[in-house]
Amino acid sequence: MTDPVVVVGGDAAGMSAASKFKRDAPGREVVVFEKGEWVSYGACGLPYYVKGEVETLEDLVSVPAEAFREERDVDLRTGHEVTAIDRDARTVTVEGPEGTFEQAYSDLLIATGAHALTPPLDGMDLDGVFTLHDMNDAPRIRQFLGMDTPTASLPDLGYGEAAAAYAELEAPDAVAIIGGGYIGIEMAEAFAEHDLQVHLFEMLPHTLQPFGPEAAAVVEEHLREQGVEVHLDTAVDGFLGEDAVSAVAAGDLEVDVDLALVGAGVAPNTDFAEAAGIELGETGAIATDEYGRTNDEHVYAAGDCAEATHVVTGDPDHVPLALTANRAGRAIGATLAGDPTPVGEIAGTAVLKAFDLEVARTGIIDEERAREAGFDPVSVTIDAESRAHYYPGGQEIQIHLVGDRDSGRVLGASMVGREGVAKRIDTVATALHAEMTVDQLSYLDLAYAPPFSPVWDPVLTAGKVLAGKLD
Amino acid sequence: MTDPVVVVGGDAAGMSAASKFKRDAPGREVVVFEKGEWVSYGACGLPYYVKGEVETLEDLVSVPAEAFREERDVDLRTGHEVTAIDRDARTVTVEGPEGTFEQAYSDLLIATGAHALTPPLDGMDLDGVFTLHDMNDAPRIRQFLGMDTPTASLPDLGYGEAAAAYAELEAPDAVAIIGGGYIGIEMAEAFAEHDLQVHLFEMLPHTLQPFGPEAAAVVEEHLREQGVEVHLDTAVDGFLGEDAVSAVAAGDLEVDVDLALVGAGVAPNTDFAEAAGIELGETGAIATDEYGRTNDEHVYAAGDCAEATHVVTGDPDHVPLALTANRAGRAIGATLAGDPTPVGEIAGTAVLKAFDLEVARTGIIDEERAREAGFDPVSVTIDAESRAHYYPGGQEIQIHLVGDRDSGRVLGASMVGREGVAKRIDTVATALHAEMTVDQLSYLDLAYAPPFSPVWDPVLTAGKVLAGKLD
Repeated sequence: MTDPVVVVGGDAAGMSAASKFKRDAPGREVVVFEKGEWVSYGACGLPYYVKGEVETLEDLVSVPAEAFREERDVDLRTGHEVTAIDRDARTVTVEGPEGTFEQAYSDLLIATGAHALTPPLDGMDLDGVFTLHDMNDAPRIRQFLGMDTPTASLPDLGYGEAAAAYAELEAPDAVAIIGGGYIGIEMAEAFAEHDLQVHLFEMLPHTLQPFGPEAAAVVEEHLREQGVEVHLDTAVDGFLGEDAVSAVAAGDLEVDVDLALVGAGVAPNTDFAEAAGIELGETGAIATDEYGRTNDEHVYAAGDCAEATHVVTGDPDHVPLALTANRAGRAIGATLAGDPTPVGEIAGTAVLKAFDLEVARTGIIDEERAREAGFDPVSVTIDAESRAHYYPGGQEIQIHLVGDRDSGRVLGASMVGREGVAKRIDTVATALHAEMTVDQLSYLDLAYAPPFSPVWDPVLTAGKVLAGKLD
Repeated sequence: MTDPVVVVGGDAAGMSAASKFKRDAPGREVVVFEKGEWVSYGACGLPYYVKGEVETLEDLVSVPAEAFREERDVDLRTGHEVTAIDRDARTVTVEGPEGTFEQAYSDLLIATGAHALTPPLDGMDLDGVFTLHDMNDAPRIRQFLGMDTPTASLPDLGYGEAAAAYAELEAPDAVAIIGGGYIGIEMAEAFAEHDLQVHLFEMLPHTLQPFGPEAAAVVEEHLREQGVEVHLDTAVDGFLGEDAVSAVAAGDLEVDVDLALVGAGVAPNTDFAEAAGIELGETGAIATDEYGRTNDEHVYAAGDCAEATHVVTGDPDHVPLALTANRAGRAIGATLAGDPTPVGEIAGTAVLKAFDLEVARTGIIDEERAREAGFDPVSVTIDAESRAHYYPGGQEIQIHLVGDRDSGRVLGASMVGREGVAKRIDTVATALHAEMTVDQLSYLDLAYAPPFSPVWDPVLTAGKVLAGKLD
């Protein structure tokens, strides 16, 4: 009898793979080992859980563990950690409540995700200093803010106790957010909703690196309008306090805060893979081919721990986002079930809500990176209206569009505005997948009606202006 | 000295061409003859003018006549009608306030637009029976509804008198809209805003033909929820009344109304072109090549009077929409200035606001039409959420996606929902321009964040489901 397919990690990539595999090959076995208790959850929703727009952590779960077990016939084992791979024997070492054991596999999928980076700051271990990456981080922050943390449908997973301690403390007045990335910006909104004074620290000249300075500048101005103190070009040295954080120190600057959130990015979980000789790429994530296969033909990797191929450069890249994980997991599930399916290429498409703004990006925006990839980048930044000029309620949209002088190709774009941004970026993302030129982009037949767009959609206007510059 | 470029018609296509030509060839002359007084106006905004969201007709004007004359150096002559072309002599006959004269041209652009069809219904000439296509139609309706018709910036163009007569009449209580096309649906919303009882008559089984029955059914249900009486499969025979309309008759049905709006579609204005031997296509609009040239190498046509090439079928089509006109005009302006520029292909992309709904379409939806074009259409209709399942305020989006069994290509789509539809259709439109397969569509890296989309955007979900059916 064939050994089961083994999946390590029960979030987006792992559970997508297991589900697809069982759907396409119902007669075969798949075992998923998840070291925690949560599976198939939307960590992207954590800021909205802290903000209070999402009531329970369980709401963030797409498919409950029981549904995988009972409806999808997936042998899902939570509380089981894989610690080693024996590639010759095709087994993994598993530590679970029942002890340590070896599990044989026919094929193995590493879907171990990523972990929040904790920079070497003084006072990282003070009470009131948090990261926000795992499901269990959020209830503690919520308790500290004096909010309920109901756990309606799932058994107590132990996070209740850690969280309860925070419920005893006085609610914070001021918060320092270290890092102006996705989490930092989204959490600024969440904390402001609770009337905290928010200080956002970014060591670089602008927040939101992947979105480029053009979009970031608009976001930073908006954050300030919303009462957020934005400290750019400001490297934090650490946190002060006895047991709990009482201030954040950054050079000569010392700001009193009683809560700190460190959002310094994530790094792929590759430990046991690397130890087993699975090759990592230059990005530090696991190198894979177009089917998600590693340097071992029976070992696949997908999701936040793995690289993917960038559609513009054709090079491996590491952009840990939810769709990439879901897509690759699903494709690998199909491949393992006998239908070889590429995991798909990524454009690094992303969107973010920052208070009243929608901020989006796709492709290669950074001109240095474009040059490294062999392009000669040319860009424009335009402002356009989201609706016909006469239709009430229109809002400005800023588009920064980057093209390649030699080939005329579209390389990437950022957009920022109050409406009509989040899904407009998809037009450019689709153009990237099609390797369209800027000229072709500017001649797309896009939708027009006065409530939704000017006759020339802002994307077309940006295309026209950039095409003129490329001529 | 070279004769001027002559443009017939001063709306989107004509003024775009004249502006682009003068920008690229500032030393040359361009003369625009417009038989009316309005130029460069957004007729698409008329329903919102009647609704009251747009205050004056002048608000609908993109660029005022004086700006064309003074800033763009365009010889714009309003109140001048071109009645004939002498292609051998390369002259047009013009009737203006100064009499009839001949104007020589080096190249001629016919941008005469379209006119509202007036079906042969009894009582079409009764007071209170309107069409809505020209700028002058709308003030009369507004006056009838008891609204102001301020004419702030432009001289009295004569529509004031006709409109004033309507101001004397008792305001209407009930309205019949004949035809469930764009204008019909948008005007149902406008009339309902004024608390009129609205009856919408559609002779076919569904409204919104180009959007397909799947989207139309959702719209019709929504119209009924909004209090609109929707009469499907109901051919109107005519209008009853002495001087003014008092009822609409449709078979055995007779409904009391005191206002009627006939929205029976438009037909291209081709009279003098046809008389001069300019060839029309099968659609009845002027046939053109990829540069907008007619069968006469010195005569171009663009906008609502002209055909364009459909990006899916490769065949000529007639879809009179604003972007097509603007785009083709601009391209022809560039071509005439010495830079040969294709007018671009059309996907028939369109979007419409219907009360609280956004309704959009692109490409080939109608399966019979797909078969005529040599495709073997396969389709799915899916419902998806506009936001992550846990993020508050999400709305359902219905997507109907059509693909070709043989090639796997995407052929077209309709979408309907309360948010996130209008610009999501552009993703599919872009995929059509790139001749993507359904499989490629389902592997696009589209934007995700909980407030704006599920991880799998509805477009991707539709693609996945259709790809499964095409396998």
